[in-house]
Amino acid sequence: MELIYTYKSILFLVQIMAELPTAAIIRIAKANGAERVGSDAAEILVKKAEAYIGELAKEASRLAAHAGRKTIKAEDVEMAAGNA
Amino acid sequence: MELIYTYKSILFLVQIMAELPTAAIIRIAKANGAERVGSDAAEILVKKAEAYIGELAKEASRLAAHAGRKTIKAEDVEMAAGNA
Repeated sequence: MELIYTYKSILFLVQIMAELPTAAIIRIAKANGAERVGSDAAEILVKKAEAYIGELAKEASRLAAHAGRKTIKAEDVEMAAGNA
Repeated sequence: MELIYTYKSILFLVQIMAELPTAAIIRIAKANGAERVGSDAAEILVKKAEAYIGELAKEASRLAAHAGRKTIKAEDVEMAAGNA
C-alpha cells in the first residue's frame, strides 16, 4: 500500500517535469466556466497550451535577438503576445 | 503515522500540480529556441498560457452547451482553438 503511494508520488513528479499537468489545465478550465472536462478534451487543452507557449517563446526569442540579447525578458513576451 | 505522512505528500503534490509549473514553461520555451528565459519573462509566459487556456475553455464550454452537453469534449476544444 505504502509502496504504491510512493510509486504514484514519483509518477506525479515525473509528470510535473515532463509536461503541463492535466490537473492544472482542468482547474483553469473550471475557473473559466467549464462544468466537466473530458479526459480527451483535457489532453488537447494541454497540447494547445504547449503549442501556444511554444509560439510565444519562438517570437519572444526573435525579439530578444533583435534587441541584441540572448535572454528573453518580460517585454519580449509581452510584445510577442501582441504580435502573435 | 507513515501512511498519513505519505497521504499528505500526495495532497501536497496534487496542490503543486494545480498551478502551471514554471519549470515546464521554461522547458517548452527552450524547446522552441529560447536560449535563456528571465524569471520575469517566465512569469508572464505562465500568465499568458493560463489566459489562453482560460479563453479556450470558455469558448469550448459555450460550444459544449450549444451541443447540449455539460462535458467538454475534444471536438469542443478543437473548434474553440479554430475560433479563438
